[in-house]
Amino acid sequence: MATDDEIRVSDSSRCDGEHSVGVVVPKTWRAVEPPDELELDCGERLSPITVAYETYGELNAARDNAILVEHALSGDAHVAGYHHPDDRKPGWWDLMVGPGKPLDTRYYYVICTNVLGGCKGTTGPSSIDPRTGEPYGLSFPLVTIGDMVRVQERLVSHLGIRRLLTVIGGSMGGMQALDWAVRFPDRVASVIALATTARLSAQAIAFNEVGRQAIMADPNWMEGNYYGKATPSAGLAIARMIGHITYLSDESMHAKFGRRLQNRDRLGYGFGTEFQVESYLRYQGDSFVRRFDANSYLYITKANDYFDLANGYRSLLEALERVEAEFLVVSFSSDWLFPTYQSKDLVRALQANGVPTTFMEIPTSYGHDAFLLENAQLAETVTRFLNHVHHHAAAKEPAR
Amino acid sequence: MATDDEIRVSDSSRCDGEHSVGVVVPKTWRAVEPPDELELDCGERLSPITVAYETYGELNAARDNAILVEHALSGDAHVAGYHHPDDRKPGWWDLMVGPGKPLDTRYYYVICTNVLGGCKGTTGPSSIDPRTGEPYGLSFPLVTIGDMVRVQERLVSHLGIRRLLTVIGGSMGGMQALDWAVRFPDRVASVIALATTARLSAQAIAFNEVGRQAIMADPNWMEGNYYGKATPSAGLAIARMIGHITYLSDESMHAKFGRRLQNRDRLGYGFGTEFQVESYLRYQGDSFVRRFDANSYLYITKANDYFDLANGYRSLLEALERVEAEFLVVSFSSDWLFPTYQSKDLVRALQANGVPTTFMEIPTSYGHDAFLLENAQLAETVTRFLNHVHHHAAAKEPAR
Repeated sequence: MATDDEIRVSDSSRCDGEHSVGVVVPKTWRAVEPPDELELDCGERLSPITVAYETYGELNAARDNAILVEHALSGDAHVAGYHHPDDRKPGWWDLMVGPGKPLDTRYYYVICTNVLGGCKGTTGPSSIDPRTGEPYGLSFPLVTIGDMVRVQERLVSHLGIRRLLTVIGGSMGGMQALDWAVRFPDRVASVIALATTARLSAQAIAFNEVGRQAIMADPNWMEGNYYGKATPSAGLAIARMIGHITYLSDESMHAKFGRRLQNRDRLGYGFGTEFQVESYLRYQGDSFVRRFDANSYLYITKANDYFDLANGYRSLLEALERVEAEFLVVSFSSDWLFPTYQSKDLVRALQANGVPTTFMEIPTSYGHDAFLLENAQLAETVTRFLNHVHHHAAAKEPAR
Repeated sequence: MATDDEIRVSDSSRCDGEHSVGVVVPKTWRAVEPPDELELDCGERLSPITVAYETYGELNAARDNAILVEHALSGDAHVAGYHHPDDRKPGWWDLMVGPGKPLDTRYYYVICTNVLGGCKGTTGPSSIDPRTGEPYGLSFPLVTIGDMVRVQERLVSHLGIRRLLTVIGGSMGGMQALDWAVRFPDRVASVIALATTARLSAQAIAFNEVGRQAIMADPNWMEGNYYGKATPSAGLAIARMIGHITYLSDESMHAKFGRRLQNRDRLGYGFGTEFQVESYLRYQGDSFVRRFDANSYLYITKANDYFDLANGYRSLLEALERVEAEFLVVSFSSDWLFPTYQSKDLVRALQANGVPTTFMEIPTSYGHDAFLLENAQLAETVTRFLNHVHHHAAAKEPAR
């Protein structure tokens, strides 16, 4: 749920700045190649699967300094740095990844993949179905957070990494991090789960469903067969606008927009843009449709809705029995999409299983988006936790 | 924002029950007849204006027992009782209006009008424009909460009522009640403002705007000229679904739906209805489009967005200087659309002006909708306040 225009670019993040990873080269890898297939949670088998990813920093000789960053709903593999020296904006979490930053690329090897079902290089509904030579559209199988993680595991193994130092992510990224710790317990030394939940709430499912309805009601959607034609941009924009309201808070919207009018000094008594908040939402909707595929939005929101860490277990408590990692769980006080009580439910279940867990609720008015924004407390907490697990891991497992 | 299917119908509310007002006859009245015109806040003049209304109980000889009930976004004039003996459901606030109920029709004369801009009998965008012989559509002027109140004032005068004992309403109904107290201070003895605000927040404007965008993106909308043709039902259903999420609370959605599946015991891995919360929302959207006009939805949400009691004054404090009424302000603890802090802001401004004000936050998990649901504390509080103002008014103004 990255809102890229929200991210403040400080001078130190310039491409040639000392705290920037600089220019990075996007990569792809065939994670699944026929006749090999990936068996998905839905029971279907998918092949081939390409995964788009980026890496920053260097894998050390012990191969124990790798951090997997997981992106949120609308993110991609481009976490930090620039694809071209003249790019206007860096990756979506440049604040956190780079020399001297919390995910310090002088010490850590940072990996991020675009999720399965996405539209930024990894196989998804807009990819070509080799059976037909046409884009999958709705014939793409439904994927889950677990399926996304299965693909990532193949890449991590391919990169020669037996055990990740940390899997870190916010929102849907946090769900993937949690899934890693349960699905591949011996492959994860620690988890940093930000602004996330062990299961999506009814309210969050409801918002996702209305967004999907808006896309599917768009006549350009045509049951998902719109590739090469007009796209369902009106529907996707509405879905994005709904999302954006849930990423902010009542308080931050009041502070940012209040009841201020846009480019006018009195009410216009018409249905055009009048309030600044309307202008902001329309801009967010319009810019999103230029960079995101509507079918991917359907698939990825559905994967979110399906997410319940207890799936396949009798309870959350039972699922977490498998965990071997250490946890840092962070919630944000004004996040009403994944409120603090959901993080606390997770923390209680972790602690009941004896999992070493640090929990913090960071006071902020920025709502769910807070995990993407500059926040000294978040930076410091993540830095300290990573230092701790890095030294702990090194002490436990000397370089081979 | 009535969610009529939410209202629990108790046996005592049957048409022939002792606590029912029984069968009521809807009425209409020409509030404005050419050459007379109503000058609206937007500067345009509107004529003719028909107002649809219902009354329950009897106006007493002193004409001091009249209560004006104001409906919310999607409500109408049918507050209580039945239009036909075989109606399945009574009016939208039957819980509150009838013999032995808080708005006790043995003692009070209760009036409700459909709002200007509505689609339930009062002039609105679906009405015929006498200049063209066609429905107004978007040529209908933008109306405000103040314009709605101006029309009501004409009806109240027509009914021979100089001073209303109470103006009561929740949500948008509460906005109208507040507007009455400022616009016609000597015509209102008391105000009961439930789950409302003195000005719409940026977040609430944002939700309304997305709903409007969904309607206007529907190709059937055709710039509002859809009367007699296919209606923009898909867009209106999406707007209603968004609204419904905001009327409930995270907690009540969790209790009501959780992550339970609808008519299935495992995930379906498709885009049909899977979770109960999705089924609920689709039902709400589908049933709403059968009873509500999409253009009215645009106009009425816009009137909400424009609502700021301080409009025309330098501040809320200054606006409330005019008030002569006594106030009861009630908020609901889990209402995040019109949260308690907004009621408290209003209460502080009233008290700073020396307005006798009773404030109560009622603990409930039902969110914004709580004001429409059975609630013993609400019923008791309203009953007691009405007793108080009724006797107070009678003491101050003996029957003439």
